[in-house]
Amino acid sequence: MPKHIVIIGAHAAGVDAASAARKTDRTAQITMLTEEKHPGYSRCGLPFVIGGHIPNFSDLIVFPPTYFQMMKISLKTETKAKAIDTTKKTVETQDKTGKSETISYDTLIIATGASSFMPPIKGKEKQGICSLRTLEDGYTIDQAVKNGARTAVVMGAGLIGLETAIGLREKGLNVTVVEMLPQILPQMLDADMAKPVQEMLEQKGINIQTGKCCDEILGTEKATGVSAGGEQFNADLLISAFGVRANTQLATNAGVVLGDTKAIKTNARMETNIKDVYAIGDCAESTHIVTQKPALMQFGTVAVRHGKVAGINAAGGYALFTGVLGSSISRLYNADVGSTGLTESAANRARIETITGTISSKTKAEYYPGALPIKVKLVVEKESQKIMGAQIIGGEEVTQRINAISFAIQKQMTARELAKADTAYAPPVCETWEPLVLAAEMVLMKLR
Amino acid sequence: MPKHIVIIGAHAAGVDAASAARKTDRTAQITMLTEEKHPGYSRCGLPFVIGGHIPNFSDLIVFPPTYFQMMKISLKTETKAKAIDTTKKTVETQDKTGKSETISYDTLIIATGASSFMPPIKGKEKQGICSLRTLEDGYTIDQAVKNGARTAVVMGAGLIGLETAIGLREKGLNVTVVEMLPQILPQMLDADMAKPVQEMLEQKGINIQTGKCCDEILGTEKATGVSAGGEQFNADLLISAFGVRANTQLATNAGVVLGDTKAIKTNARMETNIKDVYAIGDCAESTHIVTQKPALMQFGTVAVRHGKVAGINAAGGYALFTGVLGSSISRLYNADVGSTGLTESAANRARIETITGTISSKTKAEYYPGALPIKVKLVVEKESQKIMGAQIIGGEEVTQRINAISFAIQKQMTARELAKADTAYAPPVCETWEPLVLAAEMVLMKLR
Repeated sequence: MPKHIVIIGAHAAGVDAASAARKTDRTAQITMLTEEKHPGYSRCGLPFVIGGHIPNFSDLIVFPPTYFQMMKISLKTETKAKAIDTTKKTVETQDKTGKSETISYDTLIIATGASSFMPPIKGKEKQGICSLRTLEDGYTIDQAVKNGARTAVVMGAGLIGLETAIGLREKGLNVTVVEMLPQILPQMLDADMAKPVQEMLEQKGINIQTGKCCDEILGTEKATGVSAGGEQFNADLLISAFGVRANTQLATNAGVVLGDTKAIKTNARMETNIKDVYAIGDCAESTHIVTQKPALMQFGTVAVRHGKVAGINAAGGYALFTGVLGSSISRLYNADVGSTGLTESAANRARIETITGTISSKTKAEYYPGALPIKVKLVVEKESQKIMGAQIIGGEEVTQRINAISFAIQKQMTARELAKADTAYAPPVCETWEPLVLAAEMVLMKLR
Repeated sequence: MPKHIVIIGAHAAGVDAASAARKTDRTAQITMLTEEKHPGYSRCGLPFVIGGHIPNFSDLIVFPPTYFQMMKISLKTETKAKAIDTTKKTVETQDKTGKSETISYDTLIIATGASSFMPPIKGKEKQGICSLRTLEDGYTIDQAVKNGARTAVVMGAGLIGLETAIGLREKGLNVTVVEMLPQILPQMLDADMAKPVQEMLEQKGINIQTGKCCDEILGTEKATGVSAGGEQFNADLLISAFGVRANTQLATNAGVVLGDTKAIKTNARMETNIKDVYAIGDCAESTHIVTQKPALMQFGTVAVRHGKVAGINAAGGYALFTGVLGSSISRLYNADVGSTGLTESAANRARIETITGTISSKTKAEYYPGALPIKVKLVVEKESQKIMGAQIIGGEEVTQRINAISFAIQKQMTARELAKADTAYAPPVCETWEPLVLAAEMVLMKLR
């Protein structure tokens, strides 16, 4: 009898797990469950539909029904996994008509994702507070804009918050971003690197209010704004972008153990504490490559990498997940903002003594028309001189610089090695001295 | 008495050597000699002035006279170094008025560069054959275009040849490129990767004739075309782009020894066989990081890295040059073409058994408007699975992918490690699965 692999969740992690499982075992029966109507769409694309860069929300559906047919994956949409029995190895499900079913599994992959998080703010139950996590969220925001919303307040200045703020600003709304911490993008950037990004956003007309904690949602039944740090911010459209929390209830009810990050604890094979049960994606913890401590990185890239490893293992193969660095990137207007490894402040919190090197340069030869500014901050461990992280803001080729530093961190490159690295050069695409190399040189100067 | 550092040559290598020497020893006397009228200009920018991307040739002068004044460097332009006496530690010079001078040095840096090479073709002495190495060459070609040249033939399909061909095509000329080898860009690309680049250039209207050896320059006194592979190619403008040869005569006359590549042999401190005499830039040999064999990489990036090391050492400091990988890049119309490490054919010539992985992908999420094609070929040593090289053709962010692989090679990353690497993702700037990672995965599939 063929092995039965059941996957709960059908986005980045789940779909990549199913694909990897199928490639590993051609005969396995693979069942995927999702509560949503649409499986396999790109959440990361949502803010760019709001802003009009991508024409339709439906464009984000990366895996159409034909994909699942082709891969011989039995997909059950609008079907909720109600409970897992890890002794009987079954999942109890309920479809939208209320019909229940008990599905047996040989191996189970939990990819329940994460949900938008709303902190316990007074009035948080008021109607009309939007988040931007699902296609439906996207439609709701888009409809509000089409219905004439003129002002928006985004609560939270993380990547999704800022991307959404930009999308709304591009649609002509007056947008305010309210952030509790004293800087934007606190996960990605140190304060010194966040500052120029904030200034750029402000120049584009986005009102950014840092250091202001949201303490009350205004309005009677319907939310009409927020009170934060003693000020009132009225909004036709109120967006909650406080971040997401791993969906772990189903798993913990079944005895699956969580880790330090409150996401599901996994080993390098993406196995949970329970035999034949895997966890992947936004609900699953990883190990940080630099600190070797548990880390929760809720990114699409991590999800697909998790998925691939779990899919291979669940289908009887053998694959290891090698950890996360938190490499992340976004395009905020014309600036690409990226980060990998530890920020200086994260390193300090981890009690790693660091030296940093920051430089400003250009993306093309100085004399080449259209050269754009780029700023690099490199974080290096003082004792070993090993690279711990980098933050980059620039007009071009930031993503692959982040990847280059990610590779460097993974291979324990030192600042000295980076300062001597062989790099490519041509006037239309870079400077003779690569900014990454110059940042490493700055570190060495401080170490002398 | 302050140390006297004499540098022969005043382009990328020489100027960076002078700067590094000055930073190392604030009191040293530094003298730079150059035969040219203009020091410190960017040769790499010349083709882009021809094409009109950079307004003026004078824009390429990166280091104006004020720079040398600021750095307290005594610069002698239009001054030829006639002979070096390594026993007396002197350089005999002659300026444009014919006046001779004997300059004593404590340390000497030879940065005599390279010159355009013309193979022994019948009729090669005919007038009007242009190369594109100096500002004067640039003016000459530009003047020919302004004087109404309608057809151009470029002999040689290396990077400079192709960049020049594009520049002339952009000015509206009918351009033919004649290449002896069966493919374009033989130093950078394998034949399978060169093919799509050639097709793209042909679509842009450049006539490319590979596998045709130039055997006679046509014309009576003035060159009017070339006969190659039995065909005649007439040209108002005939460009020699056969590559360059290291200028070593001055050095060898003084007893400086050449290496296997016929460039000046150097050690890791950029010292020649003679005490206190250094050689850098296009006239100096390096060690290849992968093969650990002598290699001659005549790139601006190598020149500045050489220069920095020699400048520090010549001024009494200590610095090591860590070798070359041949990382190179150019923008050919809208395609960035880059390479690092060994091509498959270069690896085979070095008797390294390889596995390659080639994939085609996009530069943005599939659904994001404006996603451009990208093609990656990864060359991996079969036994160790270590990455040996990469070739990339794509619409965006090729340069930094080349640098990322360069770092990977320098840190001996394996294909397996690359296939598991943590990378950044956002829809406007890349795909969820980074093409470099997918290419590594292709290699692993072949290794299974």
